[in-house]
Amino acid sequence: MTDSATTIDLNVDLGEGFGRWSLTDDAALLDLVSSANVACGFHAGDPSIMRRTCEAAAGRGVRVGAHVAYRDLAGFGRRFVDATYAELRDDVLYQVGALDAFARAAGTQVSYVKPHGALYNAIVHHEEQARAVVDAVAEAGLALVGLPGSVVLALAAEAGVPTIPEAFADRGYRADGTLVPRREPGALVTDPDEVAARVVRLAREGTVLAVDGTVVASPARSVCVHSDTPGAPEVVAAVRSALDAAGVAVVPAV
Amino acid sequence: MTDSATTIDLNVDLGEGFGRWSLTDDAALLDLVSSANVACGFHAGDPSIMRRTCEAAAGRGVRVGAHVAYRDLAGFGRRFVDATYAELRDDVLYQVGALDAFARAAGTQVSYVKPHGALYNAIVHHEEQARAVVDAVAEAGLALVGLPGSVVLALAAEAGVPTIPEAFADRGYRADGTLVPRREPGALVTDPDEVAARVVRLAREGTVLAVDGTVVASPARSVCVHSDTPGAPEVVAAVRSALDAAGVAVVPAV
Amino acid sequence: MTDSATTIDLNVDLGEGFGRWSLTDDAALLDLVSSANVACGFHAGDPSIMRRTCEAAAGRGVRVGAHVAYRDLAGFGRRFVDATYAELRDDVLYQVGALDAFARAAGTQVSYVKPHGALYNAIVHHEEQARAVVDAVAEAGLALVGLPGSVVLALAAEAGVPTIPEAFADRGYRADGTLVPRREPGALVTDPDEVAARVVRLAREGTVLAVDGTVVASPARSVCVHSDTPGAPEVVAAVRSALDAAGVAVVPAV
Amino acid sequence: MTDSATTIDLNVDLGEGFGRWSLTDDAALLDLVSSANVACGFHAGDPSIMRRTCEAAAGRGVRVGAHVAYRDLAGFGRRFVDATYAELRDDVLYQVGALDAFARAAGTQVSYVKPHGALYNAIVHHEEQARAVVDAVAEAGLALVGLPGSVVLALAAEAGVPTIPEAFADRGYRADGTLVPRREPGALVTDPDEVAARVVRLAREGTVLAVDGTVVASPARSVCVHSDTPGAPEVVAAVRSALDAAGVAVVPAV
Repeated sequence: MTDSATTIDLNVDLGEGFGRWSLTDDAALLDLVSSANVACGFHAGDPSIMRRTCEAAAGRGVRVGAHVAYRDLAGFGRRFVDATYAELRDDVLYQVGALDAFARAAGTQVSYVKPHGALYNAIVHHEEQARAVVDAVAEAGLALVGLPGSVVLALAAEAGVPTIPEAFADRGYRADGTLVPRREPGALVTDPDEVAARVVRLAREGTVLAVDGTVVASPARSVCVHSDTPGAPEVVAAVRSALDAAGVAVVPAV
Repeated sequence: MTDSATTIDLNVDLGEGFGRWSLTDDAALLDLVSSANVACGFHAGDPSIMRRTCEAAAGRGVRVGAHVAYRDLAGFGRRFVDATYAELRDDVLYQVGALDAFARAAGTQVSYVKPHGALYNAIVHHEEQARAVVDAVAEAGLALVGLPGSVVLALAAEAGVPTIPEAFADRGYRADGTLVPRREPGALVTDPDEVAARVVRLAREGTVLAVDGTVVASPARSVCVHSDTPGAPEVVAAVRSALDAAGVAVVPAV
Repeated sequence: MTDSATTIDLNVDLGEGFGRWSLTDDAALLDLVSSANVACGFHAGDPSIMRRTCEAAAGRGVRVGAHVAYRDLAGFGRRFVDATYAELRDDVLYQVGALDAFARAAGTQVSYVKPHGALYNAIVHHEEQARAVVDAVAEAGLALVGLPGSVVLALAAEAGVPTIPEAFADRGYRADGTLVPRREPGALVTDPDEVAARVVRLAREGTVLAVDGTVVASPARSVCVHSDTPGAPEVVAAVRSALDAAGVAVVPAV
Repeated sequence: MTDSATTIDLNVDLGEGFGRWSLTDDAALLDLVSSANVACGFHAGDPSIMRRTCEAAAGRGVRVGAHVAYRDLAGFGRRFVDATYAELRDDVLYQVGALDAFARAAGTQVSYVKPHGALYNAIVHHEEQARAVVDAVAEAGLALVGLPGSVVLALAAEAGVPTIPEAFADRGYRADGTLVPRREPGALVTDPDEVAARVVRLAREGTVLAVDGTVVASPARSVCVHSDTPGAPEVVAAVRSALDAAGVAVVPAV
């Protein structure tokens, strides 16, 4: 086992409130992860939440990532928007710049970009939008978190943008390394211990156990743990405990 | 006459469209001024307009300033909003950060902040909001454009934030150096030649001619020329020609 | 005791989520009140929430009121916005019309208008904005809920708009009938039984007990119970139980 | 020639400004058409513009239609948004209700719904979104303008919603009755006289002349004239003059 196999990055979505509304117990989660995907105002996140989240992350040595989204507050960024290349590229850079101001005010800076929701899913295949995201990330000089095998990570690699392939702690995988669709059995792993065991396996062996029992190699260097599912803090705590027990250090990917 | 008296900064509001809508002939104005106050998305300005405006400014050596506003697209930032200190401070920093990303992509950076519309007027007197603006500008490490004698410039000076007092090319002044209220005679100067002569006087002598004929000393280091009044480009062209003819260099204040 | 003294209207703010976010347990509260102040999209409330809230209210025979606000989603309508007469009048009518479509789809209709947050407070004194609200309510042919003694209720009465003066179940009153300011002792009544007793007193005797022990006559025909304070459902349940026990019927004011 | 062949409805998009921004000379166009598609705030149109447009339409006996759109002010409703059935249905009803309040304040009411931009195009084929629009229009008890042969008009007919198939005055048609795609030659007819002649032909004969010279029967009962293309008022004036000269009455379709 190499040294790199004994570390893993845990990333989580935070700061997803807006104005009067909040969503998750960000403080509890920040103590457990190494990277915080901070909403930038387009699907969630207002400037004061962004500041507080950056401060809380910086105070714990947690990396700040820009969780960029379509301009769709009403839809929480979960709806595909057929934005043009230029619109999307500029929307992404706008969000990154805004967040970076708060990161810097908190003594750190934005380290990476992770697309949110429908945008994340679209750029697995949508080449024009993928290119828009890559070009904005390149302009900002940052790294990009995305799905292994996606068009967006391929384009990023071509463009010299550092990539961070990620896995999902609570999602089932198929033998070919793709996610089990949400409508099918095995799509979600809900038992905290099982989720934790999977993350440890990924960190130590670089593999995931597919729904059919196949052991599949994974290039993931970061694992996304969810913040807004029922019992999320407990699941993340279980993952962190298991990693600690297994001697896997939780460190940022970038 | 000192050397400093033979230069002046001309600043103008640009990029005040949004999506399908545009307002002014930005390109024509950019050839005439030294500083561009670029809308940052809260009263006007979408990310693509911000990019184009920064590129156009950078290409001409024009300084980019963040034209920050209340979050009020429907009111074009012209309505006082009773935002708290924290809300306003964070809204300002958000806008500055977003614009800076485009300024940097264009090879320059944001050099100063100029509050827009109702915010500009509010912080002449409103101490809490003035402090919010100053603190955001201080965090961003920028200079601040404002009204001579305003609370906000006083607070900025106390905080060590560089200040740029400005005059208005087309507004009448009273003998005490304050602006003639818009409802009174002499509030607006509309003749391009007269506007031009006033700007030359300010640049060369550091004075304005009040409505009662008094010559008043002015600390203004920048002159705001309007972009959205009828005949604006002609007025700005007249101002620029007169400055050129008088040997006054148009150079950024910061 | 007259018959009218043995009924009271209970109104509550509902539907104050937006998109991904929700705020209160609307269903539990709807079983206890007679009037629902439904957010119309400007401070909270998206179209799907508006539909669901109207359906839930109509299904229980609860009146639907338009909880109109400044256009300020980020500030939850809690910040004064210096809107002009025409802007505000039209913003109010827009919200009323939008909500009425959902009320009608649910088999009922909007019965009254209650301004929200900062707007509610502003029009206690701000004549121009008060007139804007009154004129919009008059155009819609509805009744208006407001603070006894306010400018807006006076203007409404002049204009022939039916008025519904309201009291606050959990706020302390002074001997002159005005509210104890929030910063002073006695501003809030938090004990559920005490709140309940006060509502019963108001319904049966038309009086409130001021902080100094004075018994003050109140013209209130509706009592606002809060939905978003800690323990709100318990307080409302206590109020309802006490009214039921005292033989006071909870019926809409309009 | 039947009597119905000697009338035609002319519809035009109006009220497409927002706040500080305006787009078209609505007053000039309102004198020439019979139906005004009024923006409802989601792609354009603020409450005060909606009021003014309704008043101007009502004053001329022009029908008011709700020009409903995706919630996308930044994209002017020109980008497909993958809204769910419920979101879209409710967004449409919200817009219709809001506009109806202004129509009624102006002494008329909303008579029909015309989807705007990307939504118009999507529901030619997208069954779920088409059903959402139809269901909202049915709830509002209105008629629906759409493309002949579209899924949305078929679903509307099934649901008993009155349909108004429309033609485009300045678009070329193919022999099968579909529009020439915008990228192909003949997609746009720009000569005012030719546009006018085509509208007269449609009104009198119920046919359009396809790009290959074929005469194609058209079920269109309304003709859309554009408001925001260069020379739009001149084109509409030419159309109206030609219709007047040909004895074709311009009357609302509903």
